[in-house]
Amino acid sequence: MKGWKFTKTHVPIELIEKPDPVAAPGEVVIDIKASGLCHSDVGALEDEGWMHIITAAPLIFGHECAGVISEVGQGVEGYKIGDRVGVAPIHPETGAAIGYQRDGGYATKLSVPAVQLVPMPAGVTFAQGAAATDAGMTSYHAIFRTGGAKAGMKIGIIGIGGLGQFGARAAIAEGAEVYAVDLSPEARELAMEMGCREVFDKVMDLEPVGCQLIVDFAGFGTTTAEAIEAIAPDGTVVQVGMGKLESTINTRTLILKRVTLRGSQGGDGQDIANVYRLMAEGKLDADLTEIKFEEVAEGLERLHKGGVKGRLVAIQD
Amino acid sequence: MKGWKFTKTHVPIELIEKPDPVAAPGEVVIDIKASGLCHSDVGALEDEGWMHIITAAPLIFGHECAGVISEVGQGVEGYKIGDRVGVAPIHPETGAAIGYQRDGGYATKLSVPAVQLVPMPAGVTFAQGAAATDAGMTSYHAIFRTGGAKAGMKIGIIGIGGLGQFGARAAIAEGAEVYAVDLSPEARELAMEMGCREVFDKVMDLEPVGCQLIVDFAGFGTTTAEAIEAIAPDGTVVQVGMGKLESTINTRTLILKRVTLRGSQGGDGQDIANVYRLMAEGKLDADLTEIKFEEVAEGLERLHKGGVKGRLVAIQD
Repeated sequence: MKGWKFTKTHVPIELIEKPDPVAAPGEVVIDIKASGLCHSDVGALEDEGWMHIITAAPLIFGHECAGVISEVGQGVEGYKIGDRVGVAPIHPETGAAIGYQRDGGYATKLSVPAVQLVPMPAGVTFAQGAAATDAGMTSYHAIFRTGGAKAGMKIGIIGIGGLGQFGARAAIAEGAEVYAVDLSPEARELAMEMGCREVFDKVMDLEPVGCQLIVDFAGFGTTTAEAIEAIAPDGTVVQVGMGKLESTINTRTLILKRVTLRGSQGGDGQDIANVYRLMAEGKLDADLTEIKFEEVAEGLERLHKGGVKGRLVAIQD
Repeated sequence: MKGWKFTKTHVPIELIEKPDPVAAPGEVVIDIKASGLCHSDVGALEDEGWMHIITAAPLIFGHECAGVISEVGQGVEGYKIGDRVGVAPIHPETGAAIGYQRDGGYATKLSVPAVQLVPMPAGVTFAQGAAATDAGMTSYHAIFRTGGAKAGMKIGIIGIGGLGQFGARAAIAEGAEVYAVDLSPEARELAMEMGCREVFDKVMDLEPVGCQLIVDFAGFGTTTAEAIEAIAPDGTVVQVGMGKLESTINTRTLILKRVTLRGSQGGDGQDIANVYRLMAEGKLDADLTEIKFEEVAEGLERLHKGGVKGRLVAIQD
């Protein structure tokens, strides 16, 4: 097999060859067909703080991927060779993540515990299937599982970047009324195109809407505080973005309006399955740019430089 | 009937006589037997900000009371003359509160909508029944309804004052493991006497305990922020106290530990019924000091000066 090896921060990743993995009991081997390129991988190459998180380095990098099962380990039920699957990045019990605590998805083959598999329905491409496992999962989890979004609910989405776009599209697909906030005129235009009811450049503009849920994908401190001011009584503010690490909030408002503020991180196979369902129904698409598997290092460099539109996904035939 | 009239801030309340109330459809008249004296009534006499809240002034003051039904209005079912009842301060649909938007409980008689009544079980005194309707309701609501407390759960309680004491006793009575935090050595001693597992003088001392729920009855800004740091992953911090009106919180911690921060205010008849149940079972008692009905003005003055232990309750034979 081939794979992109991450050694440590400031050292470029390297395409290496190593023996093919063999499926351990409870695991399957996947022939990877698509691997999404994530900003956090760029972060790991630039910021040494990530070395506390990537505890198994050196290892094969990458944590969002999809492919076809080529070997089924002992004791695995419900999967067979040839099944099309996505991989939930984090093990639901141990918390170990591919590309962090064990080999990851910038590879031709990957052995992974079967509990992390998510079956891909017909109509979902491998590129979509890979992209859905991180940005899709995280944004769906924040809006629906942490935020309790439902059809007909008025939802404010702050920050129409990668996660926010995915989240807004999913919320609209599930029948919510979505109101978007972004500083960028281009992002606001995109939000209108995707079916948001109204777009604003300030969080406080959400106040007259009376949102029952506001999800902050930006996280600039002031956005959290203003979301608490703008939310309807008994409403919920979900915090996902970490643009800044502190926020000064008005606890009087929190108490008198009985506001709930919840941090949301990650997600699981159930979130990915919901994203796949929306994709299969044609209600949700990811904005993707395909590159070759051999171009992963170059692709991370492009991400680092900025200006990439949509998700870069490395494809293998 | 007699009642203590509140006119406006800085004007002393005045004991007046007026015609007895007649039960309107859907309402009952209560002969009041006990009225609890609340710090917020002291606040209303000192701080003009309260005039925005006490919208029906001048009116009969007081919002925590219990008594015996002496007249039943048209259309009221489930209640009869002679029933012992407490009064939930806030109407569940309109939000109108006694002593704020209509005549209140510092009176010999009170007409009140039947939906605000809570039957008092045998063994609960009128003094307990009155005290349970505000501090009891608010603390029970914060810990059990907003916080989702359950038997066996590890719960941190910050601030063992009036509400905190009541809340800690209720949580212990319902089978939770309670850990108390208070700056005052006397309060910490009281917390140990009432059955808390451990007591601390700093919120961060709760961290090694791994509380799933922390309820902040103090609300000094730093207490909120430290509760978010000290709570176990996926835990809930409930904010009740408004000692300060702002808190600078670490949103990174909120996100990475998936913490829920919820403001809690007030409560309803269901909370009061739960407090009555615990009182009737002998598992919960309120620390009360009885005064005469004629001493309400003097009692509020005592509260204003400080140093009153437990709840002052004005009793009528």
